Amino acid sequence: MIDYRSDNTGRAAPEILEALVAANSGTALGYGADEWTARLQERFSELFETRVRVFPVSTGTVANALSLAAASPPWGNVYCSEVAHINTSETNAAGFFGGGLKLVPVRGSHGRIDPAALAETLAAVQPGQLHRGQPAAVSLTQASDLGAVYRVDDVAAIAEIAKSRGLRVHMDGARFANALARLQCSPAALSWQAGVDILSFGATKNGGALCDAIVVFNPELADPLAVQLRRAGQTWSKMRFASAQLMAYIAGGLWLRMAQQSNAAAQRIAAAIAGLPGVSLLAPVEANELFLEIAADVMDGLEQDGFQFYRRSRTLARFVCRFDVTDAEADALVASLQHRCAAPAKAE
Amino acid sequence: MIDYRSDNTGRAAPEILEALVAANSGTALGYGADEWTARLQERFSELFETRVRVFPVSTGTVANALSLAAASPPWGNVYCSEVAHINTSETNAAGFFGGGLKLVPVRGSHGRIDPAALAETLAAVQPGQLHRGQPAAVSLTQASDLGAVYRVDDVAAIAEIAKSRGLRVHMDGARFANALARLQCSPAALSWQAGVDILSFGATKNGGALCDAIVVFNPELADPLAVQLRRAGQTWSKMRFASAQLMAYIAGGLWLRMAQQSNAAAQRIAAAIAGLPGVSLLAPVEANELFLEIAADVMDGLEQDGFQFYRRSRTLARFVCRFDVTDAEADALVASLQHRCAAPAKAE
Amino acid sequence: MIDYRSDNTGRAAPEILEALVAANSGTALGYGADEWTARLQERFSELFETRVRVFPVSTGTVANALSLAAASPPWGNVYCSEVAHINTSETNAAGFFGGGLKLVPVRGSHGRIDPAALAETLAAVQPGQLHRGQPAAVSLTQASDLGAVYRVDDVAAIAEIAKSRGLRVHMDGARFANALARLQCSPAALSWQAGVDILSFGATKNGGALCDAIVVFNPELADPLAVQLRRAGQTWSKMRFASAQLMAYIAGGLWLRMAQQSNAAAQRIAAAIAGLPGVSLLAPVEANELFLEIAADVMDGLEQDGFQFYRRSRTLARFVCRFDVTDAEADALVASLQHRCAAPAKAE
Amino acid sequence: MIDYRSDNTGRAAPEILEALVAANSGTALGYGADEWTARLQERFSELFETRVRVFPVSTGTVANALSLAAASPPWGNVYCSEVAHINTSETNAAGFFGGGLKLVPVRGSHGRIDPAALAETLAAVQPGQLHRGQPAAVSLTQASDLGAVYRVDDVAAIAEIAKSRGLRVHMDGARFANALARLQCSPAALSWQAGVDILSFGATKNGGALCDAIVVFNPELADPLAVQLRRAGQTWSKMRFASAQLMAYIAGGLWLRMAQQSNAAAQRIAAAIAGLPGVSLLAPVEANELFLEIAADVMDGLEQDGFQFYRRSRTLARFVCRFDVTDAEADALVASLQHRCAAPAKAE
Repeated sequence: MIDYRSDNTGRAAPEILEALVAANSGTALGYGADEWTARLQERFSELFETRVRVFPVSTGTVANALSLAAASPPWGNVYCSEVAHINTSETNAAGFFGGGLKLVPVRGSHGRIDPAALAETLAAVQPGQLHRGQPAAVSLTQASDLGAVYRVDDVAAIAEIAKSRGLRVHMDGARFANALARLQCSPAALSWQAGVDILSFGATKNGGALCDAIVVFNPELADPLAVQLRRAGQTWSKMRFASAQLMAYIAGGLWLRMAQQSNAAAQRIAAAIAGLPGVSLLAPVEANELFLEIAADVMDGLEQDGFQFYRRSRTLARFVCRFDVTDAEADALVASLQHRCAAPAKAE
Repeated sequence: MIDYRSDNTGRAAPEILEALVAANSGTALGYGADEWTARLQERFSELFETRVRVFPVSTGTVANALSLAAASPPWGNVYCSEVAHINTSETNAAGFFGGGLKLVPVRGSHGRIDPAALAETLAAVQPGQLHRGQPAAVSLTQASDLGAVYRVDDVAAIAEIAKSRGLRVHMDGARFANALARLQCSPAALSWQAGVDILSFGATKNGGALCDAIVVFNPELADPLAVQLRRAGQTWSKMRFASAQLMAYIAGGLWLRMAQQSNAAAQRIAAAIAGLPGVSLLAPVEANELFLEIAADVMDGLEQDGFQFYRRSRTLARFVCRFDVTDAEADALVASLQHRCAAPAKAE
Repeated sequence: MIDYRSDNTGRAAPEILEALVAANSGTALGYGADEWTARLQERFSELFETRVRVFPVSTGTVANALSLAAASPPWGNVYCSEVAHINTSETNAAGFFGGGLKLVPVRGSHGRIDPAALAETLAAVQPGQLHRGQPAAVSLTQASDLGAVYRVDDVAAIAEIAKSRGLRVHMDGARFANALARLQCSPAALSWQAGVDILSFGATKNGGALCDAIVVFNPELADPLAVQLRRAGQTWSKMRFASAQLMAYIAGGLWLRMAQQSNAAAQRIAAAIAGLPGVSLLAPVEANELFLEIAADVMDGLEQDGFQFYRRSRTLARFVCRFDVTDAEADALVASLQHRCAAPAKAE
Repeated sequence: MIDYRSDNTGRAAPEILEALVAANSGTALGYGADEWTARLQERFSELFETRVRVFPVSTGTVANALSLAAASPPWGNVYCSEVAHINTSETNAAGFFGGGLKLVPVRGSHGRIDPAALAETLAAVQPGQLHRGQPAAVSLTQASDLGAVYRVDDVAAIAEIAKSRGLRVHMDGARFANALARLQCSPAALSWQAGVDILSFGATKNGGALCDAIVVFNPELADPLAVQLRRAGQTWSKMRFASAQLMAYIAGGLWLRMAQQSNAAAQRIAAAIAGLPGVSLLAPVEANELFLEIAADVMDGLEQDGFQFYRRSRTLARFVCRFDVTDAEADALVASLQHRCAAPAKAE
């Protein structure tokens, strides 16, 4: 079986687990008051070229939900893509941690918010009206949930619209590394320099193990968030084991190399099937995911050929490349697609 | 420096980290649908001699808070000791996850609820009254937050009172292993057989690394809890790395050996200082903690001698033994106490 | 000025205020334990031809939000029309009172849910999946937020789909009286007999003053709701003044007469402008509201003629008839519309 | 029967209901945008000798809960008397509306917080610690739940301690009028001039009907509170009927006259039974409540004599005077107490 189900079905980078094991020495104060967590602040501040606060958390869901709870009051509206993970796949964790905040979908393409649609949506909300909730934040999923990427200018354009109405900007960076690897820009350029206040910094989907992080650029948000994390059960008493993972994740550019690899595998597949009859892409392949519109019997055939993937509908299949997908595995998927699409369609 | 600050300042058992590393092989479905997590259900069901549901979680705080949210409606009262960790040290996480549920302290001794006081408290709440919230659950901290232990009969007596009024019984087992090691009874006897519906199963304080667990005995509570955990950001996508830790924790009785060691160290110290003038124990030493009433200048002296511990007040100091405290470290503390208490008290 | 802004800008029926004043005699137990509130239970049970529990509340918003909180767990999805008042105009009160429950819009026409769209939406949610929240309830707005009405069969069809998946059915009856007056059916037929579990029983928009009510048909929901109301600050200590209003509201069919009057005024206007060039209706006029698509300069003209109404967009205006709108006022609006639409459109 | 059960079992002042009825004229914008509510702002600003925002609400419970939710973040601690109504009788509404905020009892006497105990409690919480929640607000019940009154200096002393740690000050003024009538000071002196940020302004217990109010002195708190009230279902669409009641309540000093009457009745009783063997007061009678420690058979006798009151325990009875208790009714209670206490105690 060759697994294209998700990037969270995969292994962790050995370097990350080695760092975790290496942290198991001596005693250290609990709840993040240890030396590893102090160093983590330094490393991430260097990485982002500004003073940041970084909080290890157990999952991307809690990173998103608590980031939004920090960025919005309980009566706030948070604008996001209709297909955003926070809107479709996190059991309304944002609404729960946010005390009843509301996610409001905004039009766009390929899982991205369209800046004009955001501006229009906000223009329809008159300041001071109480009935609809108060515009509070925008959340961008980077890379998007359909495998596309916001350019730096896209982020900046949306952030500018948001800031002009006093909204905070959150980035769900579950695949932030993949976006960086695609755009070849700096973490700073794609985040705070473009107007991002708070970032869900994903590691799990890109070779991490048991933690992601919240990176806070806007210092107003950090202290209340620290309390929220404590009562959300996110402040590990043995935090060093989480901080060590995150430092290993970025050390020497490991994270970007892994994202480069998963992106490259997706590109390799996309390039090889370009123009193949019976296959079309739902969105440009800019990160490590491919959304293929293919016939149901082609999906059946791929499964018979030993490929694992998710069927999003009768005619839409998702393939996700992990950092350790090999060229041979990529080529095998291409060959199977070519073979199955060439076969005469069975009557259904 | 010799560290008696907390059992969460310590190392993890190497076996646990080895198991985590060993789980890093192949791909596995996310969010707990993997084989490790399936085996975890089997292992814990064997351990508890009944079919249980076990959910790995990131911290004891979230184990407690979500257990109580499962055991009580948002308008419920949860009865606990005044010094219970959930009441004093978890930022009211139970109130947050529980949608506004209320912790109501009940009298007792040494951090334990007194059954008669619980009965009296419940008797004062007339069924059907709305103003005070509805009695919903009792939470027992085992071992208690003052280092004492509920006997099996104590748990059963409290559970019987609770059940007679329709209340659920939660056990905060952050130091459940220490209680078991003390009482030399089975996990089943100290939990569901005595009336416990849901257990916060602690590992971190006893040689764990990055996870604790919720063990559900009452099957009604399990399915809603699974959804709550997902939206609380507690359902790791790479759950195998958590489940592997928990299996290693109990494999071959590792957890009980570690608890035995930390208990023994605390006993060794307690026995050696019994009768020492200027030192008195706030509560019996039945697990791995000692609460010593000593003069402030004795505390100063201990710190000068290289010991780390927490000052709970001007005259109360807490010493916690980890699983890897050595006899030599225990004896060193005894010697320092003997020396410092013998010294003529300085005028304050 | 002639006011078509809303049915909540209007007076209360004098009978209702007289009943409130008449209740001001002697002492009475607080928090709903009075004789008026006991009689209210009887009167509503007679009205609905079944044993109901009825709870006076301060507003329709809280009636909706607490009904949904009773019908859904905090992790539930509540399906509603995209334009439903609960989704657009109540500051996400349902999400707040419901502990983070999520409103999920379902397609339909004229503010009504389409049964087929609901079935399709539910079919796409596989039982047991955790990521999207759990389907929990359906909410029908009756009359709809665009002035249309669900027939008894419509309600029953939707309820059947809902029940087949274990969902509860809520009706937002802010204009329940208008729907009844339109359909000329019994309150029972349009509610519990068609599958409704819990009803927001509106009075304010139809000649009420300071209270609406929740009517509970499904007895499982009533006791927890009573506690929720108490802690939501909805249990007036002098409840008799609310219960007296609600009894007067239904006494002798007052509520249906008032709804008949406001419906008739809307019908009179709709009939008179049928076919008028430059005016089109967004939805059929089945209750007391008209949504007119007209040019912006026609709206300007109407305002110059002394009419008050809300502009929903540049080309959409809403006109609401109160129970005490006179035929002369209705005819005046018609005349103004005829005059203004006949005028040559100004260049913009 | 003569009713001493509560001040909420009583009638409303006729002037208040007359004002409500008088407001039933013409149309008015909804949700507080009417002229009555605008005038209410003016009247209360005059009354308090400063610019205030005043929000009518349905009950004292919601006044307290939303005031505290405005004064404290969800992770905050709110300090109050152990017997405070918010702590004992409002189903933890503050915890619910406050998103999990926690009420923390502080020692004192007669239902009042002791300033020294507050200072001590706060001193034990080190700034920056996360585990215990963040000190956020103090809530004073005026008059206290045992019928005593904070002097202006008491309020100022507590407020000074609170402010020195950055805490907000809330006053639960369910019986604010009774306290003012007792102290003969101005509303300003007893509230914002003494350091109160936000006041639950009670009317119901003192001759009101269906509304109380929140009075906001600290302007930072007002705008977010307005949104919270909307989504809490507290923003009546026909707000004029509430605002009219509140204006009538204070017009011409009606509220103070009513409080003076109920206070005087309580004083009359207290004076007449001073020194009566078998009767002792739990707290000084400074408002309109008497808490009498009397034998159970005396309580039986009083009931046989036709008096209604609440038994708080076997030996504690509460008697509350309403604004319309007559001298004859007060004297009758005194006579019955004298008679019943003189009777030889029956064996129990």
